[in-house]
Amino acid sequence: MKPVLGKISSLLLGTTLITSALAATDGELAKVMKDRGLSEIDVVRAAKTYNPTGVKDKYVVFSSGGQSGQMLVYGVPSMRLLKYIAVFTPEPWQGYGYDKDSLEILRQGNIRGREINWGDTHHPALSETDGKYDGKWLVINDKANPRIAVIDLEDFETKQIVPNPVFKSEHGGAFFTPNSDHILEAAQYAAPFDNEYHPIEDYKETYRGGVTVWKFDSKIGRIIPKDSFTLELPPYMQDLSDSGKGISDGWGFTNSFNTEMYTGGIEVGMPPNEAGMSRNDTDFLHVYNWKKLYELSKDPKNVKIVNDHKIIPIEIAVKNDALFLIPEPKSPHGVDVDPTGQYLVVCGKLDTHASVYDFKKIQKLISNKEYAGKDPFGIPILDMKKSLHGQLELGLGPLHNQYSPVDGEIYTSLYVDSQVVKWNFKELKVLDKENVHYNIGHLAGMEGKSADPQGEYIIALNKLSIDRFQNVGPLHPQNHQLIDISGKTMDLLVDMPLPLGEPHQAVAIRAEKLHPHVRYEMGTNTKTGEQHIGKTLAGQERIERNGNHVTVYATLVRSHINPERITVNKGDKVTIHMTNLERAQDETHGFTVDNFDVHASLEPGETSTIEFNADIEGVFPYYCTEFCSALHLEMMGYLMVKDPNKKYESAQKIKMQTMTPEQLKAEYDKTVAVNAATDSVIQSVVKFLKDNKFGDHKVVADLVTDALDQYGKIPEQKKLSDEAVKAGDMEKAILFENMIWQLMVKTADVGIRAKDTLVRLIATKQSDAAARGEKTFAEGGCNGCHVIGKVSSGPDLTGVLQRHENGEKWVADFILDPEKMYGEPYVKGMIDYFNLKMPNQHMSQEETKDIIEYLKWIDENANLF
Amino acid sequence: MKPVLGKISSLLLGTTLITSALAATDGELAKVMKDRGLSEIDVVRAAKTYNPTGVKDKYVVFSSGGQSGQMLVYGVPSMRLLKYIAVFTPEPWQGYGYDKDSLEILRQGNIRGREINWGDTHHPALSETDGKYDGKWLVINDKANPRIAVIDLEDFETKQIVPNPVFKSEHGGAFFTPNSDHILEAAQYAAPFDNEYHPIEDYKETYRGGVTVWKFDSKIGRIIPKDSFTLELPPYMQDLSDSGKGISDGWGFTNSFNTEMYTGGIEVGMPPNEAGMSRNDTDFLHVYNWKKLYELSKDPKNVKIVNDHKIIPIEIAVKNDALFLIPEPKSPHGVDVDPTGQYLVVCGKLDTHASVYDFKKIQKLISNKEYAGKDPFGIPILDMKKSLHGQLELGLGPLHNQYSPVDGEIYTSLYVDSQVVKWNFKELKVLDKENVHYNIGHLAGMEGKSADPQGEYIIALNKLSIDRFQNVGPLHPQNHQLIDISGKTMDLLVDMPLPLGEPHQAVAIRAEKLHPHVRYEMGTNTKTGEQHIGKTLAGQERIERNGNHVTVYATLVRSHINPERITVNKGDKVTIHMTNLERAQDETHGFTVDNFDVHASLEPGETSTIEFNADIEGVFPYYCTEFCSALHLEMMGYLMVKDPNKKYESAQKIKMQTMTPEQLKAEYDKTVAVNAATDSVIQSVVKFLKDNKFGDHKVVADLVTDALDQYGKIPEQKKLSDEAVKAGDMEKAILFENMIWQLMVKTADVGIRAKDTLVRLIATKQSDAAARGEKTFAEGGCNGCHVIGKVSSGPDLTGVLQRHENGEKWVADFILDPEKMYGEPYVKGMIDYFNLKMPNQHMSQEETKDIIEYLKWIDENANLF
Repeated sequence: MKPVLGKISSLLLGTTLITSALAATDGELAKVMKDRGLSEIDVVRAAKTYNPTGVKDKYVVFSSGGQSGQMLVYGVPSMRLLKYIAVFTPEPWQGYGYDKDSLEILRQGNIRGREINWGDTHHPALSETDGKYDGKWLVINDKANPRIAVIDLEDFETKQIVPNPVFKSEHGGAFFTPNSDHILEAAQYAAPFDNEYHPIEDYKETYRGGVTVWKFDSKIGRIIPKDSFTLELPPYMQDLSDSGKGISDGWGFTNSFNTEMYTGGIEVGMPPNEAGMSRNDTDFLHVYNWKKLYELSKDPKNVKIVNDHKIIPIEIAVKNDALFLIPEPKSPHGVDVDPTGQYLVVCGKLDTHASVYDFKKIQKLISNKEYAGKDPFGIPILDMKKSLHGQLELGLGPLHNQYSPVDGEIYTSLYVDSQVVKWNFKELKVLDKENVHYNIGHLAGMEGKSADPQGEYIIALNKLSIDRFQNVGPLHPQNHQLIDISGKTMDLLVDMPLPLGEPHQAVAIRAEKLHPHVRYEMGTNTKTGEQHIGKTLAGQERIERNGNHVTVYATLVRSHINPERITVNKGDKVTIHMTNLERAQDETHGFTVDNFDVHASLEPGETSTIEFNADIEGVFPYYCTEFCSALHLEMMGYLMVKDPNKKYESAQKIKMQTMTPEQLKAEYDKTVAVNAATDSVIQSVVKFLKDNKFGDHKVVADLVTDALDQYGKIPEQKKLSDEAVKAGDMEKAILFENMIWQLMVKTADVGIRAKDTLVRLIATKQSDAAARGEKTFAEGGCNGCHVIGKVSSGPDLTGVLQRHENGEKWVADFILDPEKMYGEPYVKGMIDYFNLKMPNQHMSQEETKDIIEYLKWIDENANLF
Repeated sequence: MKPVLGKISSLLLGTTLITSALAATDGELAKVMKDRGLSEIDVVRAAKTYNPTGVKDKYVVFSSGGQSGQMLVYGVPSMRLLKYIAVFTPEPWQGYGYDKDSLEILRQGNIRGREINWGDTHHPALSETDGKYDGKWLVINDKANPRIAVIDLEDFETKQIVPNPVFKSEHGGAFFTPNSDHILEAAQYAAPFDNEYHPIEDYKETYRGGVTVWKFDSKIGRIIPKDSFTLELPPYMQDLSDSGKGISDGWGFTNSFNTEMYTGGIEVGMPPNEAGMSRNDTDFLHVYNWKKLYELSKDPKNVKIVNDHKIIPIEIAVKNDALFLIPEPKSPHGVDVDPTGQYLVVCGKLDTHASVYDFKKIQKLISNKEYAGKDPFGIPILDMKKSLHGQLELGLGPLHNQYSPVDGEIYTSLYVDSQVVKWNFKELKVLDKENVHYNIGHLAGMEGKSADPQGEYIIALNKLSIDRFQNVGPLHPQNHQLIDISGKTMDLLVDMPLPLGEPHQAVAIRAEKLHPHVRYEMGTNTKTGEQHIGKTLAGQERIERNGNHVTVYATLVRSHINPERITVNKGDKVTIHMTNLERAQDETHGFTVDNFDVHASLEPGETSTIEFNADIEGVFPYYCTEFCSALHLEMMGYLMVKDPNKKYESAQKIKMQTMTPEQLKAEYDKTVAVNAATDSVIQSVVKFLKDNKFGDHKVVADLVTDALDQYGKIPEQKKLSDEAVKAGDMEKAILFENMIWQLMVKTADVGIRAKDTLVRLIATKQSDAAARGEKTFAEGGCNGCHVIGKVSSGPDLTGVLQRHENGEKWVADFILDPEKMYGEPYVKGMIDYFNLKMPNQHMSQEETKDIIEYLKWIDENANLF
């Protein structure tokens, strides 16, 4: 009983209440604050990030998974991790790399024929239409083994991996152009484009950087390598990129470090790279017209071919006025185009300033051919000052930028200062700073680099967490901190530890823009989106042998695998195609054959394949690895591998007790009776559902479809049972009757959930008082004896307010002082009938009133209980 | 400015306030509740689960990672995932399976020489002393490929994997005995113990179940296979186990299903397994004296050897009164021994009852040899009713149980009903039920199955999440729901999606019982705990060739790898030993050689090894994969693989601009001057730290050690710079001066963090009013012009209360109505000096008072700003 809380919170909600009742200090919230040491502002922050059960998040974040090689997905503002998506690294839960179909995707990422089973993911990008996120595709790069992967946001699965044919290292990808027709991918550590050795002494001559401009077909969501090309760049180590939008659409921007072209080596008596690569005060921003270059790439005269891939040489780009350099502050990190496309903000991590370039000024210099000079490779250099809108000192280690919907407002991460700074890039004025813990790298706004930034939150992607979390060993989680930016000043809301990988960058999208599937068309190969060659429907299960290749066409459905026995010869190649026959949302089955290092995850409707060589003799259980129903443990079978060169003799039978025909008949009758009783429960639920028009509610209709799916399998089993009875095989008949019971249990499981869901949907809305009353009814212990809708240890209270004259007063009196009424004839009769006396539960007047409101609500909905 | 919130929240905290001010409805909490649709009870639940930044959790949960093959770690009540621990599946972020040392651990898990790269983890167990968790070791089983792994809680790394030599499938592990001297591991799907084919028709004769009793050395944390044995059991499919404690110490309990020994097969016209395996109303609980069996196993007469492993045959166990069966309800799941060891609660998922067995009754029947019969294998059966304390109907699909510190109180999961039920197993009375979403499997109490359960929370491990979260594709996360059990009735607090794997079971421990390392002794092989053969200290870096095997002894430290160039021949085997020289907590370095599928994660002090064949020619960058400092991108080098059969010619040099001696001298002077200026900043921080006795605060002292570590490297670089100047090589001198600057930046980065931390630690405690004042000062925009401790766009406010007669009143008047005082000579002077007028920020009287309290606090701590 928590009366005080109700009052205080009502006040917070602005309802009127007598304030003289407010002096009490024993409210539940006050107690929790005291127990947990929370301040008032902590409670506000808690409320800003807490999602009650079933409440969904407003934004979905896609974060790189760093060296895990995966992507991760979480919700904002709850900061709850929703999913890791397997991308470059095998992941058994998803079957990724453990089934044949996904292994084919993973192997697209082989480099020079070598298998690569991990990645260092850095920069995710969401597909765009007119520079705004459209929620269709997600791409991510691998820095260590230069590759790009494409993920389909209809099912959050990786569909394509494309290795870069000329880079040996990569950082400045992936970045979509504003209509997702191209993806920019810049190199990082310069290296020869070919696959040969070139001495480090020839660094300037033979090592090269570049930007690959991948053609992307946004209808099918695939990169088209043959229509793609790479722009050759000097061996300045390219860093991050961005594509222009609005007035800068068609242009790409890539910054760099080590324009010194230093190659150190302590082991040869030289200072290390870190000293020589940061010597100059400025590096170069590369500015290139990718649209013009794309057109140029179509003419073989303009390209040279390396590793079967088109390269546009520097001189061709220069000759066609498609490539320029502008000095930028020392060792920059982010180059971030603003929502209009006019401004580019560049931060140099070894410089305290942010530099705001104006694309209009850049364009003017270009069209006037007004160059400040040329670099050693002949690329025109634009004057830095003439390109700049201006510069502003932000603090130590500025790195990356995100925009908000407020004109000119920008948020920048400060790595060394461990801060986020809010400033105005047009007026060049610092507005606010917020401390983060510690060493922020990237930061993520809500659609904060699209043409339509949303504001509301900034997430700080911090590299260190040191003292923020319970110590879990020398390898710490990282920390994504959520910052509320809706107010005048920033407010750090909460810490989110990252349990796997060093997430590098994240992009956020409004949840309402995503529309993933919940099931597939029956028999889908999810990797291609087409019908799977192994698609198998119920009744089509079979085992085929072709030489020493055994192919199994199997199905999985709650709660059995068909077939349940597979016998092969040692040395056979075994292919098992599996189809999950379920249509119910979230009814995934897993499949493994023990000790063969294979695993598939089969979502409803999916067909997938595992393949292995049966190279060892023995008996190997296989089973469904998901807890898919109460009978999940029984969802298993045996693979038996015989040695064809051995002779096997049957073992002696153990003597088992056998049942008499009478015992069998009795068990059969009992099983049939149990089934009939179970069926009548199911029928009552079905009647309730029909009476209350379940079809009007999609969520309920889906559950009913699922339940009827199970129920629909019963006649076939009944037929088998009846045939067995006719044949006099009672043993078998009992088993088929048991199968019917299993199907009924599964029907009831889902059917009852459908009923409960329907009741919640169609009951009249509870008043606040009735809701409080329901809680008080439960917490006060009333439901120990009174079950709504049926007689339990006490009478059913449905209609109790009508049963007595002046019913509300009668009930209130009885709750408040039951002893006084034990002598009343009606009460006396009840006491005799139930052999129990209604106890005094010491309810207050307020609580009693609430309970009566609850009882009124029950009467309004009496037909539902 | 949020005046109302302060007042209302103060009220909630029980401080006295004038209640007539409370009618306002624009409090910040009220606004957040309205915006986010939160009810009053939602806010209480939010407060129960929210951890402000830096606040740690009370409990740490270790959950199985299901088919991910990993473990996961999270905090309670915040439900934040802290870490995935790599166990059975390669994991690149941790280098697990991607470096040589961890690969050796992973390969311990090979079965019959075959590599297994995943696992289906089910049941974690924490090591115990006297039945209570001691926070030392964690073990976990793999159902698919029967194995047990051991994790060290000093660094949360997997140290050992032990395959089961005779099982082909496994479920009933891992369970520690009360002093962690043994681990119980029961089989699941019966199969022959040998590795040969046996036809399914001989199931009863040749297929077997069993329990392996592993000897565990809890001092070193390793399983000792040679001292372990397996108890042979009938081919009843064994399910979960538990070890006795207290009066049942020395005994083990394992339940089962399919005591029908049914082997179905739709493909052979038989009903599927699920029908035949659930035919009987009861299955068997196996009761065995593992302590006696362990002693028996030492005598070769009592064992047979299969696959080099000791088996105690059924008949030996029976003959020695060490094995019994008791009927238990149909298809049970959990068998859970209570904290005293007297009661075992078994739930049968196809029966609505929980059965409470009394070990005293069992013991009595055993000592009286009072058997109800024998099974077909000759094992004595104890009478179910005579073994029972009693049974209670709980609902549909009861599965697992957890205990609380309240005598008799137990919590049970109901899979079909999707509920947690709280009941009393002594009085056999249901106390409360709570709905969960949906289909709960295991549930986790806080140390809820140890001899010392803590209560407070229950976590429901739900198999389905359907409508709880933003849709992330057909494969849904699972849902761990946190339930508050501290009140009379349960209260569901929050949903936690699981982003990777289907976690099966979880165990929770008080956080205070865990004491992990933050760094290693320099040069540690973390897999063995001993000094690594590749340990390399600064100055010991080298490259050694032995035939075609090249061994590199490398070091990593912010921000360079030594060596930075490695040249080998195509065909060489390359071994790179790396030592992370850092001592700073959380300063991990990663290492990869691009395109060679290797990756190591090096925690401070760790040495690790990667190894590969340089089988392709080319140039391959290597780099540190952690964002370890502002210069992390520069922390790289090149592996160059030459073809020894090719001749390489140097390329033509590109003509680069060279600097004149004057230009070089000017750059040198400038660099030296920048370094001197940076050093003076560092010295001022050092003085502050010393003046304020940083050594008294361990957290600060650790940071200072780290900063000085960087600073200490400067003299050596200075020496090299000076030598270069003497030799007339200004180019090189500049580079070494740049190196000094890099070291200074890193020193300052950590040093400033040390200073800020120290200030927070030693400043006097802020009153509530001063804390509110600081917030108002920031949010009201005062800090736009006034920076505490220095003159900015406005005067420094340190000492402002002393600067004016009747200072508090003067400041208050000025804040509340500055215009009125523009004419005062002092104010006029300031306006002239700063060329800015103090604006009216419209502070209330209350806010102004708070700001003055804040200014007082500043004056108290003036020396710190």
